[in-house]
Parts: sequence; structure tokens; C-alpha cells
Amino acid sequence: MDAVPGVTLKTGRAEYAYQGRDDVLLATLVDGTVAAGVLTQSATRSPEVDWCRGALQADQSARALWVNAGNSNAFTGSRGAQATRGIVQLLSDGLAVGEQQIYLASTGVIGVPLPQDKANAAVQAVLGSDAEATWQSAAAAIGTTDTFSKGASRSLETTDGPITITGIAKGSGMIAPDMATMLAFVFTDAKIAQKDLQAALRVAADNSFNAITVDSDTSTSDTLLVFATQQGPSPDLAAFTDALTAVCHDLALQVVRDGEGAQKLIEVRVGGAVSDASAKTVALAIANSPLVKTAIAGEDANWGRVVMAVGKAGEPAERDKLSIAFGGIAVAQNGVCVEGYDEAPVAAHLAGSEIFLDVDLGLGAGLAVVWTCDLTHGYISINADYRS
Amino acid sequence: MDAVPGVTLKTGRAEYAYQGRDDVLLATLVDGTVAAGVLTQSATRSPEVDWCRGALQADQSARALWVNAGNSNAFTGSRGAQATRGIVQLLSDGLAVGEQQIYLASTGVIGVPLPQDKANAAVQAVLGSDAEATWQSAAAAIGTTDTFSKGASRSLETTDGPITITGIAKGSGMIAPDMATMLAFVFTDAKIAQKDLQAALRVAADNSFNAITVDSDTSTSDTLLVFATQQGPSPDLAAFTDALTAVCHDLALQVVRDGEGAQKLIEVRVGGAVSDASAKTVALAIANSPLVKTAIAGEDANWGRVVMAVGKAGEPAERDKLSIAFGGIAVAQNGVCVEGYDEAPVAAHLAGSEIFLDVDLGLGAGLAVVWTCDLTHGYISINADYRS
Repeated sequence: MDAVPGVTLKTGRAEYAYQGRDDVLLATLVDGTVAAGVLTQSATRSPEVDWCRGALQADQSARALWVNAGNSNAFTGSRGAQATRGIVQLLSDGLAVGEQQIYLASTGVIGVPLPQDKANAAVQAVLGSDAEATWQSAAAAIGTTDTFSKGASRSLETTDGPITITGIAKGSGMIAPDMATMLAFVFTDAKIAQKDLQAALRVAADNSFNAITVDSDTSTSDTLLVFATQQGPSPDLAAFTDALTAVCHDLALQVVRDGEGAQKLIEVRVGGAVSDASAKTVALAIANSPLVKTAIAGEDANWGRVVMAVGKAGEPAERDKLSIAFGGIAVAQNGVCVEGYDEAPVAAHLAGSEIFLDVDLGLGAGLAVVWTCDLTHGYISINADYRS
Repeated sequence: MDAVPGVTLKTGRAEYAYQGRDDVLLATLVDGTVAAGVLTQSATRSPEVDWCRGALQADQSARALWVNAGNSNAFTGSRGAQATRGIVQLLSDGLAVGEQQIYLASTGVIGVPLPQDKANAAVQAVLGSDAEATWQSAAAAIGTTDTFSKGASRSLETTDGPITITGIAKGSGMIAPDMATMLAFVFTDAKIAQKDLQAALRVAADNSFNAITVDSDTSTSDTLLVFATQQGPSPDLAAFTDALTAVCHDLALQVVRDGEGAQKLIEVRVGGAVSDASAKTVALAIANSPLVKTAIAGEDANWGRVVMAVGKAGEPAERDKLSIAFGGIAVAQNGVCVEGYDEAPVAAHLAGSEIFLDVDLGLGAGLAVVWTCDLTHGYISINADYRS
């Protein structure tokens, strides 16, 4: 991952849930940094999400990001909100920045108030330390059930030199739009106005985190924030949007690849729908179907379950116009299995780790692509005893 | 199960997918029998579903029901429709009844045309046999991945003597509203008009099969039919509706209990919603959440995941008015964990096989109850290699 001018990283240990590993992150941001964000729509969102939403509305300048791993602080009432506020005050005093220039995120178990003593001790320790963290160790510090750290960088050339965009993210369960990852933070040195940054992020989110699903479960903490330190050149907005989308897309696919128990990344492409929105609903119905996901886990070209998922989506679809392909190999066309269908090449595709599933509804020009993973014994093992 | 006057059962072997067991059912119905039905809304429904819908619209009298197990005949184009038609013609000729007095259902793999030679041979063999089947063996003949046969009876007293209502059903994956079971057939000797029978069935379905979910996947073949032979007394409609609902509810819970891999039956009761419809949406979001279902499989009182599911449902909910109880024991009230929460009695409840989960949204008088099962390794094992 490429460093971003104007961003300083430090990690520390609060030991909310994990022992012997760093579990908090502080990113300090140079004066002049602006923030944009896309936050969970959950009706039971965490106080951290409420805090970030308030900060984005009040003052889009940003000087610090603090992340807790192991405790989401969601559904903890006034005690949770108090813990959030305590961290903000300590950071505001310690860094001599405004409270609403501080962004917060927490991830982990729901319903247990963040232990304020541990949080405060960790904030003081990190503020008092001079040791900077690498981007790799920052990505590691925010993880929970993640099996690998998630990061991505892109460089955008301009006539005034390169712009860097680097992001880190963590998954890997409770993943579905909107949002689709639990936490993702992107940093760039681009000189860009806040409203342009927010517009670019909206596009990037819709084509990345809002197009992935692991288990249809939307977190109460889902947070995507982008910070622009203004230390580099000013980009063309379209080119910047593309590069930001590329970083978000890379991170989002890493989250899906690390979906709890996942062994295969599945790209579901639905075409021929009456609209793009209709295509996305159908694609998500397929991507969220336990029967489709278990069939792919079993490397079984069970396209009948794809038909079922199309049928239940509640969108316009006609049985006799539907076509399905796995790995580019037509399996069904116009509502029936293709003549002389040979399962061998399809089975070979399904034995791989990247599965491509194309569905054509044959009705219009609507198109959508979403990404998911297979549903395996691993998901059950991880989630049947995550908290206990 | 109690026999129903006017109904004769026979089973036979087509061997579509299973060897060494009966896999077809013929129920012949006395002249004068009327039918009512609730059929899947799937856009990719089977030709059998289309046939039944047409028969119900054309002529609600019924003389026979034929059921195939092991092949759903869905998504099989004109060959599938032709197989359906072939069975109807053979039965119409053999029984000397009208084609539209014959009802059909098939269940099993999607996308493989029903082998017409096997179907026709089975119809001829069953028509030529004098051996009547028991209700128990009829229930067994329609099963696929079911681990036990499903049947239920109720007797309704009237001043003119008792009315019998007996139903059989099969599950047990691809179970979600609407419909919620793959196949269910109910028979009664009640003397009742077709429009009253249909009205009673609508109520019964909404409070039974349309309130259960195993995996959120709706089948292309879901069919609920009720046949009234008119051989018994005429019932009070309200009492009959209650008794029919009781039979359907009993069958629906048997389907959930036999949900693929299920070890626990879960009753999700949502109260305090802004409307009954809103309560049902929230209840289904909880009942379909893989994270809630795996937590219960792990006997973990992870109420945070219930909060998450409420939050993602998209219905009015306020974090700080939400209360949750497992087995009648309050876990969270008004948005926070209850004071002095003792997990031991909750853990004891979760160790049982019937789990009661109550959620109060604290907003209004809307109420809904749905039933589901836990999500276990068994579901993955069954579905990752069902077809192969």
C-alpha cells in the first residue's frame, strides 16, 4: 500500500475482545483535510455511525479517525454514546482539534457497551506514543473475524504529478447493501472540494460496497469514509471518481473473498432486465439465495436454483426468455436446457475459485453486477459460536 | 391421520429419482368434490402450477390429484408442459372425468423434463391397481429430502355430526412465503361452497404456510390445495376456517421442524409495530437472517444479531424503544441489556428444541408471528450436494 501525504497512522491495544494484538487505530490528518462518507441505513445503527453522520453534516473538515475492533458499541444506549463521546473529548484535547473534526468507528460484538476505561487508556497510550504504524499494520488492527488484512492503492497521474488513493477495510460477515462492508477508510492527497469528494464516493460506493453481499445481513456499524488531505494535485473529477471506484471495488472484493467461510468469489451479472434497478434486485436475489450459494460450494451446476432465485425476486421475468451461463458457457437458453448440454466444462469452471454466473432475462437493456461468495460449513462454524 | 369420506388414495413407483420407494400419489375424489388453492407467485413457476391455476379458474370441481416426487418439472419448456398434459389425458381417460377436474403437482430437481415414459407407465400401473394406500404411505410417497412424513387431522363437531379435515405435506428446503411449503394437500368431507372454501383457505394459508421460512428461498412449485368432498355435514364457516387453519398450521410447523438440517423450531413474535404488515416484515427479516439462525444453532443468546435484523428490515423501528426476550426472559429493554442480566436461564432455554423469540418495537399495536428453524451444518451438507 502506498503512503498518503498528510496521513499519520498509529495503532494500540485496548484489549476489548482480543489479547496480544493491536485493536485500535488512530489516523491523524493534516490541517485542511476534508471528509465524505456513506453510512449504514440501519434503524439500529451504532452511536459511532450517528456521530460520523453528525460530523459530516456539521463540518466536513477532518483531523482524526479512531477505530475500535472487537466491540461495535451498537445497541448500548446512553452508555455507548457516552463512551463514544469520551473518546472524542480525549482526542480533541490531545490533538487540539475540534470535536467534529474527529471520526469514529467500532466493529465487533453488538450490545456490550464499549468499556470506557479500556478505551480511554488506549487513547492516552496512542496519543503518548511516537511509534508510527505501517498501512499493513493499520489494516490488521481494524480486523475482527477477517482472515487477512485488506488494503488497496491506486495512483492517478495528473499534469501536476501523481495523486495517491489508499484504502483499508475489514469484513467479513454481516455483509450486505447498504452498506456492504462493515468498515472501510480511504485516504487521498488529492486537492478536491468536499462536495466533489462526496459525489465521487457515492458513485464508488454504488459500484463496490453496495454491490456485494455475503449473507444478506446488514451491519449496524457499516461505515465508508474517505479523507482528502489536499496535499497533492487537483484531479479531473471523472478520472478521480474512476480511481476511487477502483480502490473501493478492490477492497469490496477482498471483503467478499474473505466472506465468512468463503471458498469461492462469485460474480453475478444480470442483463436483459427492464431496468438497471430491476437487474440489481434480481442479481441480489440470486447472490443472497442460500440454495444457489450452497450449490456453488458443492461445485454443482444446479442452474435450477438460479431459475428459482430469479422467480422469487418479484421483478419482471419470463420463464421462456431466460438464459443462464456459468463461466461463459451457456447452460440454459430461452427457458430450457441447451441442446446437447455438456456439464464437464461447466464443472471444471465451478471447481475454480472465481465463479462467473450470467443471467439474461431477455426483456430489456437493464444490467447489474454484484459479487458474493459461496455458503459453506465454514460460515456455520464461525457464526454458530462467534460470541460464546 | 383420519380418513376422509369420498377420498381414495393409491401410490406407485415412477422412479424419477428414487429407487425402491413409492414416488407418485393418486387421490381420487367422489363426484361433487370442490377444490380451492393457493399457488406460488414465482415468475418461474412449473407447468403443474400453471395447470392447477387454470383448472381452479375454469372449473372448481375436482375428481383427482396426481403428485410426482423427485422431479419438479419446472423450467422444462414445452417438454415439461407436454409431460403434464400427458398425465392429465391418461387420468381423464382412465377415470372418465374432465381434464380440468384433475390437479397435478411435482416436486424435486428443477430443469429436467419429467420423463414422460416413466410418468405414463406409473399412471397406467396405478390406475390398474386395486391396492389402496394409507394416509401415512400417501404422505411418504410425496416426500423428497423430507426426513419424516407430514400429516395432520382435525375433527370439527357440528349438530349434524363430525367433519374430518386431514392434510399431508412435504418440505423441506426452498421454503419461504409465498408459499412457504413446497406441497400440501388437505381433504375434508365438509359440505361447503367453493367460494367459502377458498376464503377459508386464504386465511389458513396466511396464518400457516405464509408465515414460515426455512431459507428465504421460494420454490417454483409451491402448491397448497384443499378438496371438499361434500360427503359430511355443512359447517359454520368461522369454525371451519379455524379447524382448517389448525391443520395447515400443524403441517406448516412440521415442514419447519424438518427444515433442511434443522435442529430447533424457532417462533418469532414481533409486537409493538406500526402495523401487522410491518411486524411481519420485521419478523421475516429476523427469521431469515443467517446470523440469527446460526447463533441459535450455536445456542448463543446473541440478541445483538436480532437488533441487527430489526435494523435492516426497512420498517419503522427505534433503537431506544426496542425490547427482546428469549423464552419469555427479558434480555434487552428500551434499547439496552436488562440490568443484572443473567444469561443462565436464557442459555437453558436455547438448549431446548423449541425456541421462543419475542421482539417488541414499542411503537404501535402491530403484531405478527412467524416460524423458522436454525441454520446448521446439516443444511450445508444437504444442499451442497443435493443434485450431484
